[in-house]
Amino acid sequence: MPLEQLSSQKCFAGWLQRFRHRSAALHGDTVFALYLPPQAERGEKLPVLYWLSGLTCTDENFMQKAGAQRLAAELGLILVAPDTSPRGPDVPGDPDGAWDFGLGAGFYLDATEAPWSRHYRMHEFVVDELPALVETHFPASDRRGISGHSMGGHGALVCALRNPGRYRSVSAFAPVANPMHCPWGEKAFSRYIGADRARWREWDASVLIGQAQETLPILVDQGDRDAFLVEQLKPAVLDAAARAANYPLTLRIQPGYDHSYYFITSFIDDHLRHHAAALCG
Amino acid sequence: MPLEQLSSQKCFAGWLQRFRHRSAALHGDTVFALYLPPQAERGEKLPVLYWLSGLTCTDENFMQKAGAQRLAAELGLILVAPDTSPRGPDVPGDPDGAWDFGLGAGFYLDATEAPWSRHYRMHEFVVDELPALVETHFPASDRRGISGHSMGGHGALVCALRNPGRYRSVSAFAPVANPMHCPWGEKAFSRYIGADRARWREWDASVLIGQAQETLPILVDQGDRDAFLVEQLKPAVLDAAARAANYPLTLRIQPGYDHSYYFITSFIDDHLRHHAAALCG
Repeated sequence: MPLEQLSSQKCFAGWLQRFRHRSAALHGDTVFALYLPPQAERGEKLPVLYWLSGLTCTDENFMQKAGAQRLAAELGLILVAPDTSPRGPDVPGDPDGAWDFGLGAGFYLDATEAPWSRHYRMHEFVVDELPALVETHFPASDRRGISGHSMGGHGALVCALRNPGRYRSVSAFAPVANPMHCPWGEKAFSRYIGADRARWREWDASVLIGQAQETLPILVDQGDRDAFLVEQLKPAVLDAAARAANYPLTLRIQPGYDHSYYFITSFIDDHLRHHAAALCG
Repeated sequence: MPLEQLSSQKCFAGWLQRFRHRSAALHGDTVFALYLPPQAERGEKLPVLYWLSGLTCTDENFMQKAGAQRLAAELGLILVAPDTSPRGPDVPGDPDGAWDFGLGAGFYLDATEAPWSRHYRMHEFVVDELPALVETHFPASDRRGISGHSMGGHGALVCALRNPGRYRSVSAFAPVANPMHCPWGEKAFSRYIGADRARWREWDASVLIGQAQETLPILVDQGDRDAFLVEQLKPAVLDAAARAANYPLTLRIQPGYDHSYYFITSFIDDHLRHHAAALCG
């Protein structure tokens, strides 16, 4: 599984790098970005925060806009950002060219339906293949945290809730918190997983939180001026499910903030510290 | 001179906003971005740091990628980022469609040659019209600092050196430090200002620094892996001119850093503190 380095740029005394490699899970080439903090040069293994981006994003948005490298360099956290879907000439996209399904919209699940099931296996990629790669090729320990935004917030919550023991920390910004009951999720699940709504429950954080095998405290930030809040995101459903299950969820409604990276960057330091408390030291 | 607000997004408890307005200097509509830190709600007038971006940029790059809002919110600094050239259907661009002249490449000077002289008056716009607008419509004082990157680093140095009393602080990232002797500058000056190289000296920081009427300490950061360092940027010429004139220039060569926003974000806090020391309190 060789890695092709696409770029390497110094940032806060560490290195922001992009790599391309052949993915077994995705049946094709994929690209990820990785930030190595300066502590990586000491040779010790560092914890890793995986970041899952939202609809239409690539591996680059988070590294360019969230401003996470400053504090990651201080805390000694590796940051890893995969792409948001499989890509490539043989990967099918939305039949109508929509931005909320297909390319850039893998929803971090493992598709079971044709023609999606061959390439759209972002859950397996994020949970298994990518950490194995990172922990082989970089000074990365198996202390893993996961976070993300919007579709990627959904992905982070689902990855953590479905895989007890795999992560030591989890958080999300404006997650699609109850995807089986919102238009983005219904469109994605019905195509990727099929018509049987019972199977959708395996990919919905508001369901999974009631069945959790372990208890990782979850931090969620949500802006109250987010244009997608009511129709797509539904954090109140997740909050109610957590309370019903006595699951430790901290949902912070941030007044005035929208769905953009200006919201993420405003609170990214809080999330990094939330992860570092579980991952570092 | 009415302002049309294009967007308003909360960021670090302040507001990132974009405005369009008719510019007298540019003979057309232009757009700028402005970050109002949370202290603006108290009603007191705050100092302003003007940021000039580099070739191909718009008013948006700095606000999206530099990560300056975090510390500006702490320090109580307003940030203002204009576009990098006039724009619009009647604004001529590079005849060959090149990215280093014309649209996105105004070089922060006042063109004297046809067909550029009608619209390409970025120096007048940045030094006079934009501050007047900002100080009229926002809680902005006349305590002004100026900084920028690459072409915008050249712009910041030239704006400060040509206009004693106008700014209280100045800094630059990877400035085009001796534009009359590099390909970008020679192309721009020969078209915007004409063939007489004696007149180019009025727009070259390495010349102006030897004629300075006031002494503002200058901070310059420059990456040593910057692909444009040798051919285009030439900080050593500026450094030599400053030493010959006994002008207080701090030139920091930062090992390993390139020309990108990953370089800028790594040191933006140092620049904000450099400006705040002169502008705040």
